[in-house]
Formats: sequence, structure tokens, C-alpha cells
Amino acid sequence: MYEYPEPLERLVEALLRLPTVGPKTASRLAFHLLKAPLEEVDALARAVAELRTRMRSCDRCGNYSDQELCAICRDSRRESGLLCVVGEARDIAALERTGEFRGRYHVLGGLISPMDGIGPDQLSIKPLLARLETEPVEELILATNPTVSGEATSLYLQRLLSIRPELKVTRLAQGLPMGADLEYADEITLGRALQGRSRV
Amino acid sequence: MYEYPEPLERLVEALLRLPTVGPKTASRLAFHLLKAPLEEVDALARAVAELRTRMRSCDRCGNYSDQELCAICRDSRRESGLLCVVGEARDIAALERTGEFRGRYHVLGGLISPMDGIGPDQLSIKPLLARLETEPVEELILATNPTVSGEATSLYLQRLLSIRPELKVTRLAQGLPMGADLEYADEITLGRALQGRSRV
Repeated sequence: MYEYPEPLERLVEALLRLPTVGPKTASRLAFHLLKAPLEEVDALARAVAELRTRMRSCDRCGNYSDQELCAICRDSRRESGLLCVVGEARDIAALERTGEFRGRYHVLGGLISPMDGIGPDQLSIKPLLARLETEPVEELILATNPTVSGEATSLYLQRLLSIRPELKVTRLAQGLPMGADLEYADEITLGRALQGRSRV
Repeated sequence: MYEYPEPLERLVEALLRLPTVGPKTASRLAFHLLKAPLEEVDALARAVAELRTRMRSCDRCGNYSDQELCAICRDSRRESGLLCVVGEARDIAALERTGEFRGRYHVLGGLISPMDGIGPDQLSIKPLLARLETEPVEELILATNPTVSGEATSLYLQRLLSIRPELKVTRLAQGLPMGADLEYADEITLGRALQGRSRV
């Protein structure tokens, strides 16, 4: 079996460990980097090397940050009465892209999944309760994924928070995604779209 | 518009410059690296950083190498009478994977393409002729891509080498690829499969 020269082989192997990257893509990327402008390759090497030394979790919400508090927690124009609870820090970027939300976030750091050994104790729930004590939160939005784990986590938090009747707990709407075709929609999605119907 | 923290943003931008990587893949890869084992991230950073400092072209054939001569040129078991001419160094890996070839290679470093300003002078043709003077080459295989540029390059070399009647010049067979369907084959491919038909 033909082997690439060692530096090339090592890069291909490192790339192969990335998600969505198979042998063909790994080779293609490696060959691209062999011919690309040197500053492009250096920029990539530096960005990868510095990622983990410079990135950390926001002390308050758990979002990715390069400082003690993330840009959202530092932003005083954010409404502190509105708290959106998400499973992973990367969910924040998706919600921010909508431009619809002006509150703050709390990252659980996962979703309840007994199969993977993840229970409530593994999630950032105690810090969430502590925030509710110190911050003037009026509405808490449960924005976990509409999956088995996400629903389980959402249900768990709903029960936990039911002792605080003054707190308005809401969740993201479920229904048909933009561009969907009723004919091909699964029955759960369509059922929830019916349940959640609103007046025009 | 929401911006990632700067170290994350810089990595996403560096990844975006890679082929086949769009905004979604770049974010996905970056988030993967944020959670991946540290040694995996370090291995990738090092492999990218060392690629260009440690890789070079083989002095003889132009293949990628980490030494003056590539592994194929160093291998004394290779038949020196058989020389396969390819456009790019990465074509060598594809040919080696077949396990069908025991000769050596010569990399042109491109294919004739007047539109891109690449003529014969930009290719490694003089070094090829010099090798024919010093190496005991009996057969030269023209293994350029079956594209307009590849055919033009092949034709150019055929003419150039026609002054050496003692040299056997051959080219890769053209025809139907494995698994093809006659009904959907393009007419040029099917035409060449007919021209190149062989007795069973």
C-alpha cells in the first residue's frame, strides 16, 4: 500500500478524525494545503493551536468566550429579565442568528440521556437555580432540542421550576419548518403543528 | 450579527478557505475541536504547521517528499525502464493505489492550459527530457487526465518525443468506468470504449 510521506500522512490522519471528513476529503484538504499560500496554512495552524488555550467557558452562562464573561453577559443592553436555557453553547449562535432574542442565555452543557450516563447531576442545573436567586429573571425559555433527550431535559426543568409560580416558563414553538411539505411531514411534527395552531 | 469569540471566529475563517468547506461545515468542525480531546487538536495544529516546513518536491521526479528523493525514486526495486508522466504529484497516489505499476514517475507540475497562461514552458518538460538522456527508460506512459488540458499536454509530449523512435510511448486506456451504465454514458466515453475494444 502506497503511503504518503510522513508529514503528509500525519496531516491526513489528523484530518480524518474530524466529523464529516472521510479519506477522500482528508487527502483533498491536505493536497490543497500543500499548494495554498503559506500565510493561509500558517493562519490555520495558529488558529487551531490557539483555540483551546484562548477559549474558555463564560463564568456566568457557560457560553464559549475568550474572557471571564462572554460578550452577551457583558452586554448591558441585554434584557436581564429574559433567560434562554440551551443544551450546548453552540445552540446560542443559532439563536443569535435569528436576531429575535435580546435576553441572556444559560448553557446546560448537555441533555439528559440515561443511555449515555448523563443525568441532571451532570448538567449545569445548580448554577441555573443560583442565577434565578440573584438575577431578576421573569421569563425562562426552555430551548432544548425537540428530541427525546431535549424533551426529557425540558420536562425535568419544568417540574423543578414549578415551585416558582412567579417565574414564567416557556418553550420554543414546535411545528412545520419553513419550506416543508405537508405530504412528507412526519406525524409528530404535523400533530404538534396542529396543537400549536394560532389565529390568523 | 452575532460574532463568535475571536479565537473561534479566526478558526472558522481559516477553515472557510479550505475547499468543500462552507459556513456550516466550518462551524461544525470548529465546535468539534472545542470539545475534542486536547491531543487530537494539538496533533492537527502540529501537522498543519509542519506540513510546509517538512514537505518538499522530489529532486528527480517532482513527487511530494520529505527527503531529497521521494520513496519511489529511492526504491531500487522499481523498474527504471518504465516511466509514468503525470500532471500533478497527487496523481501518483491514485496510480499507486491500483498496485498495477512498478515503474517510476515524472510530475509535470500542471497541464497545458492557455486560458490559465500555462504553456509547455511552465511545465517540468526539460527535466523530463534530461531524465530520458540519463535513465534507461524504455516505455513512457502518458498518464494525464482525459480532459482538454490533459489531452493537449499528452499530444504535445507525443510530438516532442516522436524524434525518439526507440522510445515506446503509451497512454492510459479510455473507456467505460467500472459500474457505468451504457444508457447514461456520454458519447465521447462510449466512442473511446468502442475504439479501444479488445478481444475476449
